[in-house]
Amino acid sequence: MNGGRGTRLFINEVATRDGFQMESRFVPTEDKIALVDKLGGLGYAKIEVTSFTSPKAIPALRDGEEVMHRIARRPGVVYTALVPNLRGGERALESRTDEFNIVMSASETHNLSNLRMTREQSFAQLAEVIALAKQAKVPVNVSLSCVFGCPMEGEVAPDAVLGWVERFAALGVAGITLCDTTGMAYPTQVQTLCAAAMARFPGLELTAHFHNTRAMGLVNTVAAIEAGIRRFDMSLGGIGGCPYAPGASGNVATEDVIHMLQCMGYETGMDLPGLLDAAGVLERLVEHPLPSQVSRAGPRLRRHAPPADFEQIVARANARRPDTKELRA
Amino acid sequence: MNGGRGTRLFINEVATRDGFQMESRFVPTEDKIALVDKLGGLGYAKIEVTSFTSPKAIPALRDGEEVMHRIARRPGVVYTALVPNLRGGERALESRTDEFNIVMSASETHNLSNLRMTREQSFAQLAEVIALAKQAKVPVNVSLSCVFGCPMEGEVAPDAVLGWVERFAALGVAGITLCDTTGMAYPTQVQTLCAAAMARFPGLELTAHFHNTRAMGLVNTVAAIEAGIRRFDMSLGGIGGCPYAPGASGNVATEDVIHMLQCMGYETGMDLPGLLDAAGVLERLVEHPLPSQVSRAGPRLRRHAPPADFEQIVARANARRPDTKELRA
Repeated sequence: MNGGRGTRLFINEVATRDGFQMESRFVPTEDKIALVDKLGGLGYAKIEVTSFTSPKAIPALRDGEEVMHRIARRPGVVYTALVPNLRGGERALESRTDEFNIVMSASETHNLSNLRMTREQSFAQLAEVIALAKQAKVPVNVSLSCVFGCPMEGEVAPDAVLGWVERFAALGVAGITLCDTTGMAYPTQVQTLCAAAMARFPGLELTAHFHNTRAMGLVNTVAAIEAGIRRFDMSLGGIGGCPYAPGASGNVATEDVIHMLQCMGYETGMDLPGLLDAAGVLERLVEHPLPSQVSRAGPRLRRHAPPADFEQIVARANARRPDTKELRA
Repeated sequence: MNGGRGTRLFINEVATRDGFQMESRFVPTEDKIALVDKLGGLGYAKIEVTSFTSPKAIPALRDGEEVMHRIARRPGVVYTALVPNLRGGERALESRTDEFNIVMSASETHNLSNLRMTREQSFAQLAEVIALAKQAKVPVNVSLSCVFGCPMEGEVAPDAVLGWVERFAALGVAGITLCDTTGMAYPTQVQTLCAAAMARFPGLELTAHFHNTRAMGLVNTVAAIEAGIRRFDMSLGGIGGCPYAPGASGNVATEDVIHMLQCMGYETGMDLPGLLDAAGVLERLVEHPLPSQVSRAGPRLRRHAPPADFEQIVARANARRPDTKELRA
């Protein structure tokens, strides 16, 4: 690990989509807009604002159009949204979405379980979405799930993953996100797959998306950086991303990852105190404790007061000789 | 990160001392003995069994002698205990403790707050303990707290840390543990300090002790390995080590770290299924959820069943043409 001096990283926030879609409480539209606007000023390269999925399928994000229409667009920030199909694409275009994020899984069983289609069917449907985006001159990113393993199938072959990347690249997508959907990735695996993807697709914007399910979210982030990845998805507070229990870890938490990266000297462009403040807002919106850690423990140099009787402790200690015979308990 | 093929690591368990001393429930003596005996068969190099502190100061470990006397000693496992002073040293010797683990802080404010002595007073007292151990031919390890930062003072100068290591080395101790007592360490800092300590004290057994307070416990472990450290403290279930809230992270969890290291190919000698089983026992003893993650999520290749209606999903998907016009939501 060489430290990050001079290495610029680009951060994508996914809490308002990947996070909110998992919450049992409906976050009011006004609060969503206010949060996105707050996040817009914190240095993100991209914010995944919402999803243009069927409101029946994901009622938590049924207000996608209104949110997208009413947020304040910061220059330099890409406001993206999940687009599952042509109907979603039309809604996204009508809402002036900067980028389509489309999703399928590298695992057949996971794709069937999650999207109720074979991967070939998903690919055919997404090809139509890509064609629509192209016509409208809107860039497309593909979030490829389960590239580091499938919770039902187990290992997923790297060659199969790269094969799907290639097929999407051939359709002219701008970027691919390699998603560790259920926290199965480990550092050496991350390096191998990321390095292979970087070498084979130098023209694609590659993003990594990690979960902290097995406590490896931060170490996997460092592994991906070492392999050359510069773009990362993260979720404020660590919400969303299929945690196995409330309060358990799903997505890596933005504030935890940024805190580490800044300590290591990476240039993230992010405002950490602003993130911690936003995490406080988020916790009130979702009405449960956040799984993130720096939001509670604070940055590493946050000072704590010594014990209340510290002056007495010092006075008593100073009254003793350095020789400690009288100190034996 | 090069992966660990051929690199042997040595694991020290601290849950029964560092963990139990923080628990509000008194773990019955029989249960402590049974747990240590279970852990003894899982591949640890060392187990910190208990503390010979005043029973009034740490009532949770008031049964130190009985536990130490009654555990089954596995050949090859070092059964160590915390020894704060000469009286503790006498109790430890009488209980046939294999090693004394003595503790002081690299930070003056932390040492005063925690041990109620100046560092010089601690050093003088510990020098007496070291002399006692030498006489009895028992090796001594020094756990040096706050070497990566102090929650009250902030940064702790690496030169000051290495100065304390040198003074203990001059007294003939066998090993030093570099402790990140409140989770302030970050990877590049870990590498710098560990590499400096390795270079300056080639004759000392150096151990690293990390907390996961700010989610960096696993990445710091990898950083320390890259700097040449081969010995690590960990706590089953992640218990103990001053977590800032119940269920929050203190010590790195043995099962989380071992899971990662085994994925990366390191030789830990540890039995992961046995650890997960022991974590289940531990959770029943402490009567609260463990902060560790692999104990709940399972190893990365644990298979989950697909949805209950998976066969119908597949049948419906197969009945469609790959062309997806009829799938539009």
